[in-house]
Amino acid sequence: MDATEFRKRGKEMVDYIADYIETIHKRPVYPDVEPGYLRCLIPESAPQEPESFEDVFKDIERIIMPGVTHWNSPYFFAYFPVAHSFPALLADILSGGIGCMGFSWAASPACTELETVMLDWLGKMINLPEEFLAGRDGEGGGVIQGSASEATLVSLLAARTKTVRCFQLENPELTESDIMGRLVAYASDMAHCSVERAALIGGVKMKNIPSDDKFIARGSALQKALDEDKAAGLIPFFFCATLGTTACCSFDKLLELGPICNKENLWLHIDAAYAGSSFICPEFRYLLNGVEYANSFNFNPHKWLLINFDCSAMWVKKRSDLIGAFKLDPLYLQHNHQESGLITDYRHWQIPLGRRFRSLKMWFVLRMYGVKGLQEHIRQHVKLSHEFEQLVLQDERFEICSEVILGLVCFRLKGSNELNEEFLKNINDTKKIHLVPCQLREKFVLRFAICSRTVESNHVQLAWQLITKLATELLKAWEPKQCQ
Amino acid sequence: MDATEFRKRGKEMVDYIADYIETIHKRPVYPDVEPGYLRCLIPESAPQEPESFEDVFKDIERIIMPGVTHWNSPYFFAYFPVAHSFPALLADILSGGIGCMGFSWAASPACTELETVMLDWLGKMINLPEEFLAGRDGEGGGVIQGSASEATLVSLLAARTKTVRCFQLENPELTESDIMGRLVAYASDMAHCSVERAALIGGVKMKNIPSDDKFIARGSALQKALDEDKAAGLIPFFFCATLGTTACCSFDKLLELGPICNKENLWLHIDAAYAGSSFICPEFRYLLNGVEYANSFNFNPHKWLLINFDCSAMWVKKRSDLIGAFKLDPLYLQHNHQESGLITDYRHWQIPLGRRFRSLKMWFVLRMYGVKGLQEHIRQHVKLSHEFEQLVLQDERFEICSEVILGLVCFRLKGSNELNEEFLKNINDTKKIHLVPCQLREKFVLRFAICSRTVESNHVQLAWQLITKLATELLKAWEPKQCQ
Repeated sequence: MDATEFRKRGKEMVDYIADYIETIHKRPVYPDVEPGYLRCLIPESAPQEPESFEDVFKDIERIIMPGVTHWNSPYFFAYFPVAHSFPALLADILSGGIGCMGFSWAASPACTELETVMLDWLGKMINLPEEFLAGRDGEGGGVIQGSASEATLVSLLAARTKTVRCFQLENPELTESDIMGRLVAYASDMAHCSVERAALIGGVKMKNIPSDDKFIARGSALQKALDEDKAAGLIPFFFCATLGTTACCSFDKLLELGPICNKENLWLHIDAAYAGSSFICPEFRYLLNGVEYANSFNFNPHKWLLINFDCSAMWVKKRSDLIGAFKLDPLYLQHNHQESGLITDYRHWQIPLGRRFRSLKMWFVLRMYGVKGLQEHIRQHVKLSHEFEQLVLQDERFEICSEVILGLVCFRLKGSNELNEEFLKNINDTKKIHLVPCQLREKFVLRFAICSRTVESNHVQLAWQLITKLATELLKAWEPKQCQ
Repeated sequence: MDATEFRKRGKEMVDYIADYIETIHKRPVYPDVEPGYLRCLIPESAPQEPESFEDVFKDIERIIMPGVTHWNSPYFFAYFPVAHSFPALLADILSGGIGCMGFSWAASPACTELETVMLDWLGKMINLPEEFLAGRDGEGGGVIQGSASEATLVSLLAARTKTVRCFQLENPELTESDIMGRLVAYASDMAHCSVERAALIGGVKMKNIPSDDKFIARGSALQKALDEDKAAGLIPFFFCATLGTTACCSFDKLLELGPICNKENLWLHIDAAYAGSSFICPEFRYLLNGVEYANSFNFNPHKWLLINFDCSAMWVKKRSDLIGAFKLDPLYLQHNHQESGLITDYRHWQIPLGRRFRSLKMWFVLRMYGVKGLQEHIRQHVKLSHEFEQLVLQDERFEICSEVILGLVCFRLKGSNELNEEFLKNINDTKKIHLVPCQLREKFVLRFAICSRTVESNHVQLAWQLITKLATELLKAWEPKQCQ
């Protein structure tokens, strides 16, 4: 395919995407396929001779779309939102077209420098303390990671390196593995599984801090764990606080936890993957209070800030801590400006070496929506979740299972877990709306997350009608069953 | 921006990219900017009110392009190629437009299933042993990672988990950290720095196997290291072989190393990041002989197979080894089909949780080029590197520094490292072509890598004319300097 054909086909594809988004509400949100469906529709091996664009294009509706879960449908209420906006799509076309690598400043200066400045913009939007910004000569700064999991891992590894070096200085008789064997990382029992996974990867112990009855990690619980573990000869080194847990969007008490981390010399990482986007609204910024105690902070604009995946924003107060954990400099990656102090080689900040020009989509979205446009998007979602919460509260067959603060409502039918499991299955089997569950203590709970950029009150109302209709049917069928 | 405006702007962006690629040879390949250039051109913070597309669009040429290193210019001969093709760009528009997440089968079945089938297609194209393919009921299979660094890390972690479990079974008195402290990973001293980094992240020792005079790791050197380390009480567990080293595209002797790894119970991972794409040509497939000894194999279609970044293909013989190293299953990520055995949850195969629909670009490229079209692309590059090699050989002021097998030529002026460092600087300062150096033993060497999809003989000839002209000037200036 040459540039001439690309002009034609690219425009067809743009129209296809515009059509897809404009009519997405008409598709069943969840696909009606069984595992292995696709292999039957596709040849056993790649063609020897080139096929035409038309041949490939017509297979999109035949082979791909029947198996797609439509995350951007206004009837998608599962997991958390995945960001999707037209300015981000435009920027991604540009990024792919340029197709440069940004692993060092020299590999493509614009790619590195736009990222640094965009992370400063975004940091200012959520009123991050100055120390986290790169500015012209700051010691901190931001970076785009692929996912919150990577941000957690990178911060845990930086903390591990720092602690091991520190202990070896004070105790030169200890080997690295002696120290590693005594390190302990902590997170709330409500933290995302990626925290446990980061500890697994880093080869260190991980302990859960029991959260309180509102699913919030508190200072007293952390202090208790630290005291016990230190008495047992262990070395606490890392705490990951969650702002907006995946299960129920609860917020760890940073103002209690932060001072303890600082006093006890623990690296404090904050994972605000979903909730972080809301901090651009002054009325939600209080949820970030205590960030000043943190070493690193992360949230995912690719969840709720209309910047398509992948775009996970991470900031550190001391970039030297990250770089120190990873820096390896073979000659083929060195360049003239390396030691100038003015520049950033982002390969030292992340797990992979290669990196796309992802800051372009941040630049496009922040400019074409403006801060106000993005605030409006957040507020619309929060308004809709409260609308749904009110509907639930007005129906006495249901209960709300955790405080609704942002765009997530955790609810269930009053009754057993089995009842609610069947209820969720019935809801999802309609393929009209899509939800996923969570576990809150012993309870099986349904999560209703406001997700799509285009979701409105009528979609929430339709979802609620469906939910109550299915509840009535289920309870009718269930009651006699219980009496048998 | 609504769908109507997206239709208009998307088409403008498609035209902009087509224009960019059609005229890229007219731009200076390397940018003429100093560190910090971009911050001066951009406001201190994000705008409150939305800006128009026109405002953003005109800033692309004003702010971004002056700082871009044009990796897809036919005058770019640095690093290794980064893949770029129109079918891949079209697929990426589609992928962004759908905007689904593929962390589990249920999260979007098409996303997972197309990936599994595409990795089977690609595996067959390079004639990988059947054990690495998923098929309908295989124990192996492929996955798209973001980068070769991640593939190396994932395989090292799987090997670490497997070895620790094995040793703990046999020696229940040993703690995990006792064993971790004795584990040793190995790679050639020519291996990419990401291997050392993977060991650093995984918290295990890493030793370099000295390569021979052709920069090749040999069985005898590995065996010697293993014998010494085992005698010292260490536990060798992982070897990363490189096919096509970054510095000079040398190939470790798999047929010697593989049997040793199998005998000594080392996980053998093969990193063929650049060279792997060439194995689709029967005449280069011999370079992969010995892959049958490996546990995992990886190469980057995003380097040389016209599938835009990121698309790093990785296969394992036993998927249970990977999954066993990472699997954590909270309720909000579980789904009905989880235990069916028919399906794949790729989140257990990788570091991040989220994943884009990257197999679409593999599907588009493999179909629209066909195997033959891709073979032609590889052969064109190898032909051009031999053309350049001949030019170098015919000029007695130069020497070739390692065998030219694929698309990379390592060469230098006969003389000191200082001379060659100045030479490279002079070449790159013209910004007409762009090269990076490498270190081969004590020698500072220039790498001439055939990179762009559109590079032809005339670009190579023009590059050589520039190189010889600068050599003449430098040698003239240098000789009197040497006599002073």
